[in-house]
Amino acid sequence: MNKKLLSVNNKEVKELFQLTLKSKYRKNSNTFLIEGLREIKLAINNNYQIKYILFCPKIISENVLHNTINTTIEKIEVSIEVYQKLAYRNSTEGVIAISNFKDHSLQNLKLKSKTPLILVIEAPEKPGNIGAILRTADAANVDTVIIANPKTDLYNPNIIRSSVGCLFTNSICIGATTEVISFLKTNNINIYAASLEATELYHNQNYTKPSAIIIGTEDKGLSKEWTDNSFKNIIIPMKGKIDSLNLSNAGAILIFEAKRQRNFS
Amino acid sequence: MNKKLLSVNNKEVKELFQLTLKSKYRKNSNTFLIEGLREIKLAINNNYQIKYILFCPKIISENVLHNTINTTIEKIEVSIEVYQKLAYRNSTEGVIAISNFKDHSLQNLKLKSKTPLILVIEAPEKPGNIGAILRTADAANVDTVIIANPKTDLYNPNIIRSSVGCLFTNSICIGATTEVISFLKTNNINIYAASLEATELYHNQNYTKPSAIIIGTEDKGLSKEWTDNSFKNIIIPMKGKIDSLNLSNAGAILIFEAKRQRNFS
Repeated sequence: MNKKLLSVNNKEVKELFQLTLKSKYRKNSNTFLIEGLREIKLAINNNYQIKYILFCPKIISENVLHNTINTTIEKIEVSIEVYQKLAYRNSTEGVIAISNFKDHSLQNLKLKSKTPLILVIEAPEKPGNIGAILRTADAANVDTVIIANPKTDLYNPNIIRSSVGCLFTNSICIGATTEVISFLKTNNINIYAASLEATELYHNQNYTKPSAIIIGTEDKGLSKEWTDNSFKNIIIPMKGKIDSLNLSNAGAILIFEAKRQRNFS
Repeated sequence: MNKKLLSVNNKEVKELFQLTLKSKYRKNSNTFLIEGLREIKLAINNNYQIKYILFCPKIISENVLHNTINTTIEKIEVSIEVYQKLAYRNSTEGVIAISNFKDHSLQNLKLKSKTPLILVIEAPEKPGNIGAILRTADAANVDTVIIANPKTDLYNPNIIRSSVGCLFTNSICIGATTEVISFLKTNNINIYAASLEATELYHNQNYTKPSAIIIGTEDKGLSKEWTDNSFKNIIIPMKGKIDSLNLSNAGAILIFEAKRQRNFS
C-alpha cells in the first residue's frame, strides 16, 4: 500500500513545514522543497537528487503526475490540508518535491570554456534580486554564478520562485570572498569589480578574455578585498539625479555588455 | 493654535488611510501620500504640489523638520498611533506629505533634446519592477518614461518605495498605446519594439537618432499594435535554458546599450 500523509499534525509533515520556514532546518538536513511541475522537472534534468514527491490528488491526478515526471521517484499522496500547509504559492499545481542540496563548492567547479564569463555577487540578501540575477545569468548563459559571502540561503522558497527555475539551470558556486578571489586568480580570470568609486568605464573594457564581473549590494557595495584584488575597478556612468541602479539591473547591464563584445557566442 | 490629528478614529485620518490603500481614492481626490524626508524633498524639488505635511514629534522634532524641509507648507502634528496607521514602511522617519498628483498627460510633454531617448513600458503591473525601471531611467537620464495602458496606479506606495525617489526625478507620461504611438510618430521618434518574435538584434541598431525603446510585460509581451507600428522590432539574444529576463533587467540592457552608443552624453 502506498504511503500517505493526510494530517497536518503528522510528525513528518511538521518537519517538512519547518523546512519551508527555516534556513537552519534546510541546512541541517541538506534538504529543501521544490514546488511546481516545471521547477521539479528542471531540478531533475539538472541532476538534483529528489528524495520523494508529494502530490495532492484533489489538484493533480496520479496519471498526469506519472506522465509528466516519468521517474522511479517515490510519490506520496497528501491531503489538501497538508498540501496547503507546505505550499508557498497561491496558485499552484498540487506537487512538491523533497530534494537534496546540490554541491556548490568552488573546489569541484570545472570550467568548460577556455574564455569563461563568470558573474560574482557579493553578499546579496534580497531573494527577489537574487532570482532576477539568476534569470539574467541563465539568459546570458554565463559559465557560472558565484555567490561570495552569502547572506541568504540559496534554497529560500522566494529565490526558487523569483528565479522561475533558473536556480536549477545555472551552475552556482558559493564561497568566502577570499576563496573566490583565490579561485579566479589561480584560473587566470580577469576580475572586473563594479564600484561607484571606480574611474574605468565598464564599456571601455575588453571582456572577450576570461572574465569575472563582480557586483556588490546596493547599500554596501563591494568589500575592499575585491577592489584591492581586481584587474580593473569599473563603473557604469550614471547621469541622473539619484543614480542608484537596482542590483540585478546593474548586473544585467554589465553581463550583456560582455556578451555583446563576445557576439553572444 | 496649530492643527493636530491625534486619534485614529478621526474622520480625516480615516480618509487619509483610504488613500494608502486604494488607488480609486487616490484618483478621485488627485492626492497621495509621500513618506520619508528624502522622498518629500525630491517631490518638492521636482514641482509636486504638497498640500500639507504630517509629522510625529515622538519620531522627528519640529526643529529638524523645519530645517530639513524649509518651506511654508502647513505642518500638522500627529500621534504615534496615527503615524503608524498611515506609514507604509517599518523603519521610518516620522514624516508624511500629502501631495497632489502631477500632470502626466502626453499632450503637455515638451521634449528638450533634439535626439530624445525615451523608454516606454506597456501595461506594467508589479510595483517592484516599475520602481526598478524608474531607477534605471533616472540613472540613464532618459528624456521621459512613458507608461502605455497602465495597469497599476503610479502612486502605489510600493512603487514610491521601490523607486527610491526616482518616481519624482523622472519625467513620466501616461497614455493609451494608440496615443503614445501617435505621439512618437508625430515627433519623428524611431520606435524600437522589444519582442521575443523579433529577428533584428538589439545591439545592431543605431540609437543615436531620436529613439524610443518599448518593452512589454514578461507574461504577455508587447501588443501587436506596437510591433505593427515600430521602426524595428528588436530582440535580446538569449542563450540559456529558460531565457526569460526580468522586465526591468531587459529594460536596463536596452537603455544602457543606447546610452553606450551615445557615449553617455
